[in-house]
Amino acid sequence: MGNPVYDEAGGAGKESDIARATPSRRHSSADQNAPSAVHKVGFPPKKKLTREFTETLKETLFSDDPLRPYKDQPKSRKLALGIQSLFPILRWGREYNLNKFKGDIISGLTIASLCIPQDIGYAKLANLDPQYGLYSSFVPPLIYAMMGSSRDIAIGPVAVVSLLLGTLLQNEFDPIKDKVRYQRLAFTATFFAGVTQALLGCLRLGFLVDFLSHAAIVGFMAGTAITIALQQLKGFLGIQKFTKKTDIVSVMKSVFGSVHHGWNWQTILIGASFLAFLLFTKYIGKKRKNLFWVPAIAPLISVVLATLFVYVTHAEKHGVQIVNHIKKGVNPSSAGEIYFTGSNLAKGIRIGVVAGMIALTEAIAIGRTFAAMKDYQLDGNKEMVALGTMNIVGSLTSCYVATGSFSRSAVNYMAGCQTAASNIIMSAVVFLTLELITPLFKYTPNAILSSIIISAVVGLIDFEAALLIWKIDKLDFVACMGAFFGVVFASVEIGLLIAVSISFAKILLQVTRPRTALLGNLPRTKIYRNIEQYPEATKVPGVLIVRVDSAIYFSNSNYVKERILRWLRDEEEEKHEAKLLPRIDFLIVEMSPVTDIDTSGIHALEELHRTLQKRDVKLVLANPGPVVMEKLSASDFMELIGHDMIFLTVDEAVMTCAPKSREDV
Amino acid sequence: MGNPVYDEAGGAGKESDIARATPSRRHSSADQNAPSAVHKVGFPPKKKLTREFTETLKETLFSDDPLRPYKDQPKSRKLALGIQSLFPILRWGREYNLNKFKGDIISGLTIASLCIPQDIGYAKLANLDPQYGLYSSFVPPLIYAMMGSSRDIAIGPVAVVSLLLGTLLQNEFDPIKDKVRYQRLAFTATFFAGVTQALLGCLRLGFLVDFLSHAAIVGFMAGTAITIALQQLKGFLGIQKFTKKTDIVSVMKSVFGSVHHGWNWQTILIGASFLAFLLFTKYIGKKRKNLFWVPAIAPLISVVLATLFVYVTHAEKHGVQIVNHIKKGVNPSSAGEIYFTGSNLAKGIRIGVVAGMIALTEAIAIGRTFAAMKDYQLDGNKEMVALGTMNIVGSLTSCYVATGSFSRSAVNYMAGCQTAASNIIMSAVVFLTLELITPLFKYTPNAILSSIIISAVVGLIDFEAALLIWKIDKLDFVACMGAFFGVVFASVEIGLLIAVSISFAKILLQVTRPRTALLGNLPRTKIYRNIEQYPEATKVPGVLIVRVDSAIYFSNSNYVKERILRWLRDEEEEKHEAKLLPRIDFLIVEMSPVTDIDTSGIHALEELHRTLQKRDVKLVLANPGPVVMEKLSASDFMELIGHDMIFLTVDEAVMTCAPKSREDV
Repeated sequence: MGNPVYDEAGGAGKESDIARATPSRRHSSADQNAPSAVHKVGFPPKKKLTREFTETLKETLFSDDPLRPYKDQPKSRKLALGIQSLFPILRWGREYNLNKFKGDIISGLTIASLCIPQDIGYAKLANLDPQYGLYSSFVPPLIYAMMGSSRDIAIGPVAVVSLLLGTLLQNEFDPIKDKVRYQRLAFTATFFAGVTQALLGCLRLGFLVDFLSHAAIVGFMAGTAITIALQQLKGFLGIQKFTKKTDIVSVMKSVFGSVHHGWNWQTILIGASFLAFLLFTKYIGKKRKNLFWVPAIAPLISVVLATLFVYVTHAEKHGVQIVNHIKKGVNPSSAGEIYFTGSNLAKGIRIGVVAGMIALTEAIAIGRTFAAMKDYQLDGNKEMVALGTMNIVGSLTSCYVATGSFSRSAVNYMAGCQTAASNIIMSAVVFLTLELITPLFKYTPNAILSSIIISAVVGLIDFEAALLIWKIDKLDFVACMGAFFGVVFASVEIGLLIAVSISFAKILLQVTRPRTALLGNLPRTKIYRNIEQYPEATKVPGVLIVRVDSAIYFSNSNYVKERILRWLRDEEEEKHEAKLLPRIDFLIVEMSPVTDIDTSGIHALEELHRTLQKRDVKLVLANPGPVVMEKLSASDFMELIGHDMIFLTVDEAVMTCAPKSREDV
Repeated sequence: MGNPVYDEAGGAGKESDIARATPSRRHSSADQNAPSAVHKVGFPPKKKLTREFTETLKETLFSDDPLRPYKDQPKSRKLALGIQSLFPILRWGREYNLNKFKGDIISGLTIASLCIPQDIGYAKLANLDPQYGLYSSFVPPLIYAMMGSSRDIAIGPVAVVSLLLGTLLQNEFDPIKDKVRYQRLAFTATFFAGVTQALLGCLRLGFLVDFLSHAAIVGFMAGTAITIALQQLKGFLGIQKFTKKTDIVSVMKSVFGSVHHGWNWQTILIGASFLAFLLFTKYIGKKRKNLFWVPAIAPLISVVLATLFVYVTHAEKHGVQIVNHIKKGVNPSSAGEIYFTGSNLAKGIRIGVVAGMIALTEAIAIGRTFAAMKDYQLDGNKEMVALGTMNIVGSLTSCYVATGSFSRSAVNYMAGCQTAASNIIMSAVVFLTLELITPLFKYTPNAILSSIIISAVVGLIDFEAALLIWKIDKLDFVACMGAFFGVVFASVEIGLLIAVSISFAKILLQVTRPRTALLGNLPRTKIYRNIEQYPEATKVPGVLIVRVDSAIYFSNSNYVKERILRWLRDEEEEKHEAKLLPRIDFLIVEMSPVTDIDTSGIHALEELHRTLQKRDVKLVLANPGPVVMEKLSASDFMELIGHDMIFLTVDEAVMTCAPKSREDV
């Protein structure tokens, strides 16, 4: 790859040879000034205000250009396309075939066997009766299959959201003493979670999800996993009375507080043995990718075995807690139970918004991951509408917040799902379960559910990711750990709050303290680079070249100005100490990275210019971008420093300011 | 200025001539590969974590390198320097001389004559007795003169802060019915305003002030000016009962509601005639810079005249409201009156923080402006400590929030002040006023004070600035107008809130939707530029060159990825329609402006790479910065795309990807 560099260097070499040979050449050429060869710093074509405004708006909200396919189409076609984009099933449904069906049925059955025991467990996390978990795996997947555009996501209740919803809800009502109101609030929250998601989609505000950084999510997920696992100790050890709090300290207290009278060895035996089994199958699945189905069906198997075991040995008489009763039949309507008035409405909205956002973040993250793997486009905003509708409908049919599950989606993908039809298969299986075999779960010990959940959430702890974050970006790591410890030691909400605020702090830091760099000339080229990054780069005598690495806005304009002056001061002192080189006559500001500037920024530049004038140093700009050029001329700043002080490249600026510099180098 | 361009173009031309003449040359040179000429993309020297951390911290909080002078100094000297930097008077005091004193005494007397009537008026804005205005022009200026580092700022009560304080306080207590508690809360607020300012300074959080954008301030100031002027209609028209609200609607209501019985023609006569006089003198001062003192002393003159007039004609008997009584003597202590407990403490803190921040913003803005004019450095954080201390001491001596006044500082500057000593002169005059002549203000009509305030605040409305903002940055203008209308139609707080939130929204927009540009080659050069800005720039066949104009963070990583893919899609469709040119084989991402990247950003790049692979387009990076290089290698992304896919310049990348392109052009 060196050649072009050499080539270029050679070119540059030749050029300066010539320059040295015929110094008069430049001037002569100035007279016979061949305009075709001269490139002035360009102005962008002036835009109308309205046009500029609409373009900004478009770029902000419609950056994915959703109306593209509708362009110059007949009305009827537009309508058809509209309906199709709302119900993608109409598109992929038509080219559906047996081959795809094969993939979908296998994956559908696999995730079904995985989701049934998980649902029952997750419902307990949300302090709801087990059947609600199953309900939420019946209706929502159907809706999503019709409206969703991801082919791999597996819809249903998930651990994190269940826990979050549970904690938020029980701050309002007691799930046992105040069961009815608790459930009603749960449906209300679900409804508004759906509304939030749908609204974000309709208003094209999908990008708001991006404000929760990857690092924060990693930490948050890991923290929640730990918290959930700790919660399982209740069922796992068969403890009767357990703390309502989720932080590690109070959980540990109530665990070891009941060590002598509370623990039940039979329960522990069942739980431990099956947990070992599950983790082992997980291990196998990791080792041999083609055995992915082993960990996928293991939970169901262990449920069956454990249930049989309890049924035979009547362990429930020895203090082994069992599921006891799961209501038979499909989702009853819950439309009447949602609070649309009173203080509970407000509570429902508040909880719904939070739960909805988290559910959204998880679903979008999953969707994007798999879309990238299979290389198909995913319209974030359309996804949100789909997820939102699904939760709204869910809330009317006794479901609580459902979303895409990391673990099940991965299984779905590996089982070779082709379309969202796998979700339909799954929900069909759940339907049969609800209609026929729920009574069989009577003797299922809670311990086994706990083991299943623990083995499931273990996957949410991503060490590699955390390690990578540490290696790449320390501040990200702080956000990650903040979220993690926040969740583990305080509560899910606190963790979330910490995560979000650190993420924002990071953005603000970026815009308040942008980087600046001193540039030097790479020997025998026309290239100027950061001297820290390129030690071989040499400063040009008499010229100080500073690059500002950010848009200059009110939030950083003063800093930028003062930082540049500090570069100058340091430079001059250095020269002064080492009594050599001419003093600095020109300060070249490389503007390439300065993508935008506002009034405060221009003021800062003006002040900089004035200060430099006093020390008779000339301010020179190199390669300002279109927007900057526009604003500089609008503000008459160009007149202030003079048009001939703005150059196309640093090299040109240097050649004009210190024509002999090249030879000196 | 064209020459160097021609020169370079010529150079490039020569080079490509050669290239064309001897195409084999490049390859031959590859063999005899002269390493000295090859510049690889450089890695910055690896930094220790601690070092990196401290450097970031230093750049964030100590960017102005405050400890610089202390470097390698003996202990005693350090101490001396420390005290000096805390009390700059010790430094400038020693080289003080008669010449400087001449300048200071003139300017001091001028601003004194200006401030006395203003103080009395501003105190009314804050719903306090007139003497408190004078108190606040006695103690605070003394403190500032000792600790402040600005030479031109004139300290005292100012219109905006007085109004803000007044409105905030009267939300809590009624200034007439509940006078005592109102005053106590005022002192409490002042105290905590000072604490806030001092704290910000000590914690080096001065940059927080920058988050209120210039545009927002312009709008806010103008709005407040209007509001203040409207408030003056009470005194100006001699209306007895006036609304407590400050929004234009309710003010107008109470003005025209009392038109028939409320207005007093004698008052109006006095007010109108003197307002005309004041505005005329202002006009003169504008026209002839050397007559600046005319508008400066006009207020005092008109006060004297108006007072005499009322005294002689006994106009007060005809319903002309007069000041009546100003308490004689200097500031009594108010240390005991500050609330340090109870709910009033909280109120005081809340109000104090807001008022303190606004006062700070105004003072810092003024300080910076004049520092830039006279070219001396101003340490924002030290300024804050000075202002804070001054307000803390003030709150203990019956002063309310004081800060730098735009109008008086300007006069101070024009009157040729040399040091902060002019503030001492002023406060001495105020002292004499308090001790001796306050009784003489008995017959001063309120109307004249209103006229003085109106003529003063008119200067806060800066049309030029607003116009400039409109020309430069539309979004800034929105912020400006938002603040303006918020203040005028709702209240000062609302306006402030709007201003801040729009400013923040702008930052977020910037980091969520960074600009991207398509680059083309400038004919006969090695330079690649935005084809929108440089229509002459030509795309390179088979290569798409995209520049990303921002750090790639979690908040924009997905957008950046998808935007790049959209560029690619558009390009390919264009080609497809115009059935010409080879398909795109290389996507070069110009990374120069990408100053930083985080984990989400790297994920986005990885996904981009994967997607491109599927369409067999090669991803190529040009000129990634030091930080980016570090992180790319840390994350093994370099292995993913291959080291030979990262180039020093776009030109090199092009020469390698499409070696024939140059000839084609």
